[in-house]
Amino acid sequence: MLAEPTPEQLEALSACLDAGGFIDAASAAAQPYLVEPRGLYRGRAAAVLKPASTDQVAAILRLCHRHRIGVVPYGGGTGLVGGQVSLAGPRPVVLSLERMNRIRAVLPDDAAIIAEAGVILADLQAAAEAAGRLFPLSLAAEGTCRIGGNLATNAGGVQVLRYGNARDLCLGVEAVLADGSVLSGLRPLRKDNTGYDLRHLLIGSEGTLGVITAATLKLFPLPGETVTAMLAVPSPDGAVTLLQRLRERLGDGVTAFELIADQGIAFLAEFYPERPDPLAGRPAWRVLVEVTGPAGGGLSERAEAVLADMIEAGLVTDGVLAASESQRAQMWWMRETLPECNRRTGAISSHDISLPLSRIGRFITEAQGIVAGLGPALRISCMGHVGDGNLHFNVFPPKGAAAPDRKTLAGPVKTAIHDLAHAHGGSISAEHGIGRMKTADLEKYGDPAKLAAMRAIKAALDPRGILNPGAVISG
Amino acid sequence: MLAEPTPEQLEALSACLDAGGFIDAASAAAQPYLVEPRGLYRGRAAAVLKPASTDQVAAILRLCHRHRIGVVPYGGGTGLVGGQVSLAGPRPVVLSLERMNRIRAVLPDDAAIIAEAGVILADLQAAAEAAGRLFPLSLAAEGTCRIGGNLATNAGGVQVLRYGNARDLCLGVEAVLADGSVLSGLRPLRKDNTGYDLRHLLIGSEGTLGVITAATLKLFPLPGETVTAMLAVPSPDGAVTLLQRLRERLGDGVTAFELIADQGIAFLAEFYPERPDPLAGRPAWRVLVEVTGPAGGGLSERAEAVLADMIEAGLVTDGVLAASESQRAQMWWMRETLPECNRRTGAISSHDISLPLSRIGRFITEAQGIVAGLGPALRISCMGHVGDGNLHFNVFPPKGAAAPDRKTLAGPVKTAIHDLAHAHGGSISAEHGIGRMKTADLEKYGDPAKLAAMRAIKAALDPRGILNPGAVISG
Repeated sequence: MLAEPTPEQLEALSACLDAGGFIDAASAAAQPYLVEPRGLYRGRAAAVLKPASTDQVAAILRLCHRHRIGVVPYGGGTGLVGGQVSLAGPRPVVLSLERMNRIRAVLPDDAAIIAEAGVILADLQAAAEAAGRLFPLSLAAEGTCRIGGNLATNAGGVQVLRYGNARDLCLGVEAVLADGSVLSGLRPLRKDNTGYDLRHLLIGSEGTLGVITAATLKLFPLPGETVTAMLAVPSPDGAVTLLQRLRERLGDGVTAFELIADQGIAFLAEFYPERPDPLAGRPAWRVLVEVTGPAGGGLSERAEAVLADMIEAGLVTDGVLAASESQRAQMWWMRETLPECNRRTGAISSHDISLPLSRIGRFITEAQGIVAGLGPALRISCMGHVGDGNLHFNVFPPKGAAAPDRKTLAGPVKTAIHDLAHAHGGSISAEHGIGRMKTADLEKYGDPAKLAAMRAIKAALDPRGILNPGAVISG
Repeated sequence: MLAEPTPEQLEALSACLDAGGFIDAASAAAQPYLVEPRGLYRGRAAAVLKPASTDQVAAILRLCHRHRIGVVPYGGGTGLVGGQVSLAGPRPVVLSLERMNRIRAVLPDDAAIIAEAGVILADLQAAAEAAGRLFPLSLAAEGTCRIGGNLATNAGGVQVLRYGNARDLCLGVEAVLADGSVLSGLRPLRKDNTGYDLRHLLIGSEGTLGVITAATLKLFPLPGETVTAMLAVPSPDGAVTLLQRLRERLGDGVTAFELIADQGIAFLAEFYPERPDPLAGRPAWRVLVEVTGPAGGGLSERAEAVLADMIEAGLVTDGVLAASESQRAQMWWMRETLPECNRRTGAISSHDISLPLSRIGRFITEAQGIVAGLGPALRISCMGHVGDGNLHFNVFPPKGAAAPDRKTLAGPVKTAIHDLAHAHGGSISAEHGIGRMKTADLEKYGDPAKLAAMRAIKAALDPRGILNPGAVISG
C-alpha cells in the first residue's frame, strides 16, 4: 500500500522546504532521529524533513498523500513506546517539528498561550512564567520534549492531579490532516460546542490522524505559596487515604503526590551515596507531596496543622517539610532522578499502568507476589503519580545478576503485570501511549468495539495510511 | 437513503423491548417527545422507544441500522437547539433513555460514580451528596435534564469555571454505536492512553455518532465552606479583571462568576416586584460570585479581606456578602429565574456565544451599538458565565411593542450578533450545541477542514446516517 519515496519524490519534498529543511537519511545529521531513549528500537527513514511553517507541513503531507509515502511525526524524540521510530514497511520520511518553535502569542488576559508544536516544554513553561502565569505540564523530559509531542501522546507528569493531562490543558489545536488540509482551531475559547471535538481526537492519537502544528494552551495564576513535604506512609493504600484526607482539608491545592517504594531510594543511595535522605530509617513507602496556594492564604500554617493531624491519625509515620528552596529541590531531585537510576540499573521490564484508586494496594501486593514467583530476589521499584492511579511498576534483576536473565524474564513479567492490571480494571498504558511497543497489548486488552471504531476513524481521516504507519493500530 | 419503519419493522422494534417500552406515535403518551422547551419546533416520529437496558438499545440500533431507520436519541428533552426533534426526512423513532435511570455504582474511594444515561442530573447530584461527595455539574434544567443528554451536548452551567464542562467531568462512557456494537469504557481511571479518545468524540456529538447509555463521572470533596456575594462592577471588562484578581488571591476556589446586566434585574422587578434586590441603586452591571473551600480554611475571613481590597481598588463599587443560607438562596434565585423572565418577555433572538476573555467588553459595547441600529429601544438582557467567556446575549422588543416586530428582526439580529462574535474570534454556540437550529451557522462560520473531517467521521461510524439525522451535520 505505502511506497518508499523515489529520488524524484524526495526532490519534490525537498522543494517544499526552505534551506536546512531537508536532511538526507544517510547523513550523520539524520541519525539522532532513528534512535529512542531506551535504545530498544532502531528507526528507518528515507529522509528527515524539518518544515518551518504550517504551510510547509501541508505541502509535505499533500505530496506524501498523493504518493502514498509514510510520514513519522517527530517531536523531541523522548517517547518511551517507539511511537517516533519506523520499524517495518517501506521507509517513511521523518517529519520533525523542531523548527516550528515559536511562541505565537502570549495572552495573559485570555489566560492562554499559543505555541508551535516544536516549542520545548521547558521553554513554554518559561514563556508563561515571564508573563506572570503558570503552564503546569511538567515531566522528567521537559528540557527536551516538545509540546506537539506532549499533545500527540497526551503526556501526564507530576502535576496531573491538580491540572490534568496534556489534553486538559489544551484549548485548541492547529493540525494538518493526512491530505494536507489544515484544521485551524487556535481560538482561546473556554467553551465551544460547535461540532465534534477534533482536538481531543487528535490529542493522544500519536500522530496517526494528523500532525499537530500549534496549540492554544491554558495558563494559570502562579502559585504564591508552595509547601513541599516528604512523608513516610504505612502502605500504598494508606497513601491513597492520606491523599483523600489532604484534599478534604486543603482543597484543590494538592498539586503533586508521588508514591515511592524504598527500592527507588536504595538505587539512589547506590548511585548517589553522598546525597542525604530527608527521612530516617528507610521507610518501605514514602510520598512526595506538594501543595500550592495563593500568597497570603496562610497555606503553610494550615498545611502544618493538617500534617500534625495526619501523624496523630497514623496516616503519616514520619515526615519532613521542606524548610528552604534547597530542601525542596533535594526532594524533587530524588523523585526526578529515579528514572535515571532505573536506566542505570537496567530493568527486566518497565510498566506504565493505571488502576482505579481503590485497587492500588491490592494490585501492588498481588504483583509483588507474582514477581516473587517468577524469579528469586527480583527487585521492584514501584513509584508513581498515585493520585492519578498511575504506577510505574518496574522489575529489576537481583543485585549483581547477569544480563541474560533479563531477556528470558521480560516477556513473562510484562504479561503477568499487564494481565493483573487489566484484571483490576486498569490500563496497560497510563501516560506513555501505545506507540509501536504496545500495539499487541492494545489488541489483547482493548475493547473490540473501540478498536473497530478506531480503525474506521483512521481509515476515514487517513485513507492511505500514511500517518505514523504501524503506530497505535498495527498493520 | 433513510426509510420510515414499516409496521412489521415497528413490531420487530417493539419485540426488542420489555413491557412499557414501546409507545405508538399517535398516542397521547408520545406527544411530549415531539415538543421542545421554547416551542420553536414540532417533532415527528414513527414511534417512541424506551429501552430498559444497554442490550435493548443495541438490539434497536442493530434493527434500525439494517433497515435504515432514523433514530433520535432523547434525554430530558431540555435542549435548546432542536437536537431532540426530527424536522424533516422519513419519520424516525425517538429513543428515550429515561428508563435507564439507575446509578450503577457509587465509588467514593475512586472518587467516581457510574450512572446510566437516563439519570436526572439532580438525582445524580443527590446520589453523590449521599456518599459525601460533590458532582458539580449544575444548570437551570437540572431537575429535568438527564446525564446522557448532558454528555451528548457537553453541557456547561454555573460551575464550569472551577470544574469544567460535562466532558471534563467524565472518566468514561458506555455507548452503543450505529451498528449496535457496544463501547464499554466505564473504568474509573484518571489516566488511560490506550488509543483514540472515543469518549471525547462522543461527548458533544449530540447523538449523531453513538448513543451514550452510561458514564463514569468524577466526584469531588463537598465544599466545607461557601461564600456567596453579589457585587456591582463598573463594566463587563471590569468583571473579567475582578475575576482574575479573585483567582490570584483565592486560588481555584472561585466556583461561579455570573455577569448580569441590569436589564435582567429590570425583568425580575417587573415579574417579581415583591422580591428585594440585595444591591441598591440598580447598577448597570453586577456579578454573582461564589467561592468555596474546605472547612476550617478561613475562607470567609480571606474573602472578606479580598473584597475590601477590591472595593478599595475600584473593581467593586458596591457589594453584599450573603450572611445566611436564605440570602444566598435569594441571590441564586435571581440568577436562575432570569431564563424564565426572558421566556415570559419573549426574545426577538437569543444567543449562546463565547468569546476570548479579552474581547468580552469590546464585544458587548459593539453589540449594543449594532442592536441600537437595528431598531429603536430594543432591550438587551446580557448575562452569562463570564469567567468562561460565555454570554447569553438576548435581544427583546421595546417595552409594550407588538409581536410582529420580532419575526422581522429575528434574522438580522441573529446574523449581526453571530457575525460580531465570529469576528472577535468567538463561538456561535458556547454550551447549547448545534442541534438542528444552528447547522447553517456551523456551515457559515465553521472551519471547512473541520467540517470535512466531521463528515468523514460521521460516514465512518454511522455509514447509513441513522443517528439523529439532520442534527449537527445537515443533509
